[in-house]
Amino acid sequence: MKKIMVIGASGTLGQAVVQELRADHEIVEASRGDHRFPVDFSNEESVRALFNKAGQLDGIIVAAGEAHIGPLKEMTAEQFNKGLQNKLLGQVRVYLIGQHHLSAGGSITLTTGIITDEPLRDCANVTAVDSALEGFVRAAATENREIRINAVSPTMLTESADIYAAYCPGFEGVPASRAALAFRRSVDGIQTGRVYRVW
Amino acid sequence: MKKIMVIGASGTLGQAVVQELRADHEIVEASRGDHRFPVDFSNEESVRALFNKAGQLDGIIVAAGEAHIGPLKEMTAEQFNKGLQNKLLGQVRVYLIGQHHLSAGGSITLTTGIITDEPLRDCANVTAVDSALEGFVRAAATENREIRINAVSPTMLTESADIYAAYCPGFEGVPASRAALAFRRSVDGIQTGRVYRVW
Repeated sequence: MKKIMVIGASGTLGQAVVQELRADHEIVEASRGDHRFPVDFSNEESVRALFNKAGQLDGIIVAAGEAHIGPLKEMTAEQFNKGLQNKLLGQVRVYLIGQHHLSAGGSITLTTGIITDEPLRDCANVTAVDSALEGFVRAAATENREIRINAVSPTMLTESADIYAAYCPGFEGVPASRAALAFRRSVDGIQTGRVYRVW
Repeated sequence: MKKIMVIGASGTLGQAVVQELRADHEIVEASRGDHRFPVDFSNEESVRALFNKAGQLDGIIVAAGEAHIGPLKEMTAEQFNKGLQNKLLGQVRVYLIGQHHLSAGGSITLTTGIITDEPLRDCANVTAVDSALEGFVRAAATENREIRINAVSPTMLTESADIYAAYCPGFEGVPASRAALAFRRSVDGIQTGRVYRVW
């Protein structure tokens, strides 16, 4: 049994990850609105407080992050920066602080998406952010070999099709429970520097 | 003859790009210290002023940008954000504002590096930033087909080996003049969404 923190545990994907892992792992469920482990990962002190409260971990999963969606021709640098500050820097911040709270051989698993490889209308910011996260995974796995780092890149979740289907014409959705299996591969497997695509 | 703006024209790469293109194009040389076209691309007003002064362009090249270099285990989110605000958001800002100052079919060419694919010691921030830029190129080329966008990814420049060789063991450098040819491919060719690797 490992002690695994899931940040974004209340979200569609996070709930499925918790469901998948809790059969045989101790799960620390963290999210913005959680009463026990509240966290705003865009805030340095909030992330530090979370890890100090949770104690040593064997794994950290981040299934959270927002970016800007809107037409490229009207986009401003300020809007583009939203995704940099939230989803990108937030997930990286969890790595930078969380690396010091992991047991040897522990893992960190970030969340990107099919949009890295398949740009969608109005989503240039998301493609840039997710590409940066996948680059960070490659670099961090190479430089710090004491812990593992991977990313899970799901396609559209069937549970979210109401919101995203208009952006994803002809995309086959996957249920969040199937995407959750890739997080188990990352947590219980031996690989590092991987992007697990669930497409 | 096209009218091409080169941002970062005073740098090692920028000088070579100007040298390559000025035989048959009109070049607007912009850089932080330029007396005629000064620009700080981390500043919104500075970029707006530059484009307003330069008038309509047929091509924009950005050969500039700084990111954080330092050990991953000691890195802070604030340090990581330096590369996001400078090289990443700076180059994207040039696209977002510059797209409105380009003639139809004009091109924007960004600069990344081999580090996207080959992580180097202490350079996780640079890999993330350059990966984001390459993702942005994929997305922008897909969404806005009225202009072209590409990136040039050089390996270590032989002119910069004094500074970077310690980070790049066994890397074959290329002269800046050879990397400059890839900018000509982008400016005078017909492709879009490409990353021209000069390795």
